[in-house]
Amino acid sequence: MASTKSEKGWKSRVHEIIYEADTPMGKWFDILLFILIIISVLLVMLESVKWIDATYHRILLVLEWIITILFTIEYIARIATIKKPWTYIFSFYGIIDFLSTIPLYLSYIFAGSQALLTLRAFRLLRVFRILKLVRFLGEASLLRNALKASRAKITVFLFAVFIVSVILGTVMFLVEGEEAGFTSIPTSVYWTIVTLTTVGYGDIAPITPQGQLIATVIMLLGYGIIAVPTGIVTVEMGKQANVKKDSGNEHFVHVNTQACTTCSKEGHRDDAKHCYNCGSEL
Amino acid sequence: MASTKSEKGWKSRVHEIIYEADTPMGKWFDILLFILIIISVLLVMLESVKWIDATYHRILLVLEWIITILFTIEYIARIATIKKPWTYIFSFYGIIDFLSTIPLYLSYIFAGSQALLTLRAFRLLRVFRILKLVRFLGEASLLRNALKASRAKITVFLFAVFIVSVILGTVMFLVEGEEAGFTSIPTSVYWTIVTLTTVGYGDIAPITPQGQLIATVIMLLGYGIIAVPTGIVTVEMGKQANVKKDSGNEHFVHVNTQACTTCSKEGHRDDAKHCYNCGSEL
Amino acid sequence: MASTKSEKGWKSRVHEIIYEADTPMGKWFDILLFILIIISVLLVMLESVKWIDATYHRILLVLEWIITILFTIEYIARIATIKKPWTYIFSFYGIIDFLSTIPLYLSYIFAGSQALLTLRAFRLLRVFRILKLVRFLGEASLLRNALKASRAKITVFLFAVFIVSVILGTVMFLVEGEEAGFTSIPTSVYWTIVTLTTVGYGDIAPITPQGQLIATVIMLLGYGIIAVPTGIVTVEMGKQANVKKDSGNEHFVHVNTQACTTCSKEGHRDDAKHCYNCGSEL
Amino acid sequence: MASTKSEKGWKSRVHEIIYEADTPMGKWFDILLFILIIISVLLVMLESVKWIDATYHRILLVLEWIITILFTIEYIARIATIKKPWTYIFSFYGIIDFLSTIPLYLSYIFAGSQALLTLRAFRLLRVFRILKLVRFLGEASLLRNALKASRAKITVFLFAVFIVSVILGTVMFLVEGEEAGFTSIPTSVYWTIVTLTTVGYGDIAPITPQGQLIATVIMLLGYGIIAVPTGIVTVEMGKQANVKKDSGNEHFVHVNTQACTTCSKEGHRDDAKHCYNCGSEL
Repeated sequence: MASTKSEKGWKSRVHEIIYEADTPMGKWFDILLFILIIISVLLVMLESVKWIDATYHRILLVLEWIITILFTIEYIARIATIKKPWTYIFSFYGIIDFLSTIPLYLSYIFAGSQALLTLRAFRLLRVFRILKLVRFLGEASLLRNALKASRAKITVFLFAVFIVSVILGTVMFLVEGEEAGFTSIPTSVYWTIVTLTTVGYGDIAPITPQGQLIATVIMLLGYGIIAVPTGIVTVEMGKQANVKKDSGNEHFVHVNTQACTTCSKEGHRDDAKHCYNCGSEL
Repeated sequence: MASTKSEKGWKSRVHEIIYEADTPMGKWFDILLFILIIISVLLVMLESVKWIDATYHRILLVLEWIITILFTIEYIARIATIKKPWTYIFSFYGIIDFLSTIPLYLSYIFAGSQALLTLRAFRLLRVFRILKLVRFLGEASLLRNALKASRAKITVFLFAVFIVSVILGTVMFLVEGEEAGFTSIPTSVYWTIVTLTTVGYGDIAPITPQGQLIATVIMLLGYGIIAVPTGIVTVEMGKQANVKKDSGNEHFVHVNTQACTTCSKEGHRDDAKHCYNCGSEL
Repeated sequence: MASTKSEKGWKSRVHEIIYEADTPMGKWFDILLFILIIISVLLVMLESVKWIDATYHRILLVLEWIITILFTIEYIARIATIKKPWTYIFSFYGIIDFLSTIPLYLSYIFAGSQALLTLRAFRLLRVFRILKLVRFLGEASLLRNALKASRAKITVFLFAVFIVSVILGTVMFLVEGEEAGFTSIPTSVYWTIVTLTTVGYGDIAPITPQGQLIATVIMLLGYGIIAVPTGIVTVEMGKQANVKKDSGNEHFVHVNTQACTTCSKEGHRDDAKHCYNCGSEL
Repeated sequence: MASTKSEKGWKSRVHEIIYEADTPMGKWFDILLFILIIISVLLVMLESVKWIDATYHRILLVLEWIITILFTIEYIARIATIKKPWTYIFSFYGIIDFLSTIPLYLSYIFAGSQALLTLRAFRLLRVFRILKLVRFLGEASLLRNALKASRAKITVFLFAVFIVSVILGTVMFLVEGEEAGFTSIPTSVYWTIVTLTTVGYGDIAPITPQGQLIATVIMLLGYGIIAVPTGIVTVEMGKQANVKKDSGNEHFVHVNTQACTTCSKEGHRDDAKHCYNCGSEL
């Protein structure tokens, strides 16, 4: 009985540490996890740089194993201490946790039969660990709400941008020859979006006067319509900020400059009958 | 008599499906049309890629014919089921529908007499089918209203940008030689707009110190004045959102400047029958 | 006496046409002037394109002479019909009008003694004619007021951007070698502004990892601080729009939910003494 | 005694000139300092341009010594005339003043033992003199407050942008080969940020169709999310402008939800001692 009890107690304690951030231990766990994820993502990035991988291959592999083992422990602990493990396993974070842990094991299982390149691709899945950091963005509710509220409008906007890009891209394909890099309509549409969003790589650029004229129109168009998503989000954020302000609005009331006849304090509520300071009648 | 009736019923049923989106059939028709348009635009784009056109020419042509026949049926059905066909034919959507259907037929009509190059140009007209998607942007009334309201201001703004670009482009033409790519004033003006809108291809870039100094000023100018269209649209959208909010606010009504004949008071409700001050009839 | 009178009448009539836009003749004059300016600027631009100048030199010269003569007539008429000619001559528009008219004459005066290049430079002064179009932007008072009101803040902002650019440019000069194009601090500062304003030519680009890291920081910085001028102008425009709205505000009054005791109509003005509908006392 | 007095008087007079800008002398001092800093920064920048340094080395060195001596005098005067020198020395401005003065001396101290390259690096420290100009940005309190208030949200936003960049950069690394310049994940992430912030150098650009497709998505994403910081700062500035307006509004105070024990009324001032309704003590 006692053992079951202590076991339950152990489980719930671990659960508290892993799943909640209110206790001191929970906070430490979150900070540790944060650092581990950052390190693991840095490892994947460094490994992709050839000369670093060639020089420090062993160190990177050892660090990789340490991270993978720690993530494995975390993953098992999460499953062991939760009441409904399957809900977690197939949840958004559950799948990310699994995908973050598995690549190194997979690289050993398929090492004999598969090529090295595919292995690397599997390893890169670990970059999704960075999505775990989404947890730490929790306080950004205002941002999220504003984006959620303006999602429909921004979708309509981007769709309109896409329609315009297809038409202007086709026009540019007809106007500019292949010399300037406009080799097909998809490429022209790609160039139009590069220009419309003011990115402007310059790998493809119009060379004929009429092409440059149309390009100028596209640029000014892009310069003008960048205002649209900005306007949408700004208005939505303004609303969100007002909602926030108004929701707690009953805590602000209008006060007048009437002075209490007894204590001379000012700033009474408009509907006050007694002084808030000395209690004498007003 | 009965046959006429059923015929009328058939016409109105088709009309309902094609022109309205409220019924289940109407919705299905809209979704089908949406997919057809997307496919038809993709076909035009893929056909312009040389290796795709070379390898899959036959498949693309068959698909193109299927799309064209379906669009032809739709176009005829639209004309047949509407009361005033000519109003539809010369309406915005009517012209788009016609231009979306005709290119493939045209390519066969002119095949004997015209060159292959012109044929390709005709085929590309099909890209305008994407404009049919404008129908699906119908709910974006806030966006449209905000843009409509700020159109005059944005036109003035773009005109001012153009004046500045011509002057700065001429200055750059004088400062930078032809080595840097500033071969004529139109090219310099093109470069100035590329810079001012923060696109920055880099196909033309200043190389002299004084040219780079002026370029810096142009960039900072562009960085500063991008705020202008954004400000215009944001304020306009804020207004639109407020108008929407206020429209249901029964505590604020519009009053007119009509003066009471008895007491000369102004500011009566638009629907007032008596003066709010003295009570005499208006 | 009569002749003086008619002369005065002639002068004031011309004055009305040239300086005012309210009369039909004045409007026609403005539109004609607008078209003339556009043509004259196009001439300057086309003349700078080598092959156009080589092929159509004679036509361009004739058109240039026509424009110059018309501008000369306008300039003389402006001086002749105004009461205080010197005030006009040294005003902003007066100087522009003079600079727009003089280049062609100058090119003949100095033709013998000066080189052809300087001639071209004089001719290019005519591009300033486009500034005459500023007259036609008159209705953009909201834009101008908002920009005027936010000028101080935007100056402070651009000054801060410049300080940041000098420091980051110096850092990049130390980090990146000359291979990447960072040959001196001014060039590095130029690159930093190109990056910070999101123009990004690509003529100079970091190649070392640490350089690319700093470049990333500069880009994110630029992406973030582009919000500042936008915010300034938007808030200022919102204010301007409110000022405008409030100034004509007397057509909207607050109404209450008090119901008339006779006809039960609600929505009376707060200061109403009688029902607006039936006229009975409230 | 008299000498001490006059010395004190001298000290306080200098203190007034250096530290305050209200007196005429203080204003002149500030303007002189402003010009000196601009000159000193220009000197550092010019010195880095090879041909200028080669041709005018002597003049630059002399000017550099004059500036350094003047800054030394200013630094000593600041320490001498302030009551708590150590507070100044370790303050933000104190450290900047020190760093602005020391480089030239350092270059002589280390001249014998160190290499020329390190010398140049020391000299470049002088560019930090530009930070002295921060003093002159003092009136930009609205800007600073708005940025301070929106700092947390912008940090969250930039962090989210970074996460997205790492994921999209990794995807691009897998999709595009090394031919296009995507040689490692860090480089790909660098490219993603270059694209997302709409800088777009073009030194690295996708060449495969699938790469260009993903690039298009990244650009549209960047075009859309540039709205976020803009929205944040605009709303915050709008608030600041309102706060400024409201700050003189003593007629609004914060009230709490504490209920009076006698009459159960809520909404007392935070500093209330008596119920405003019945007068009983709280």
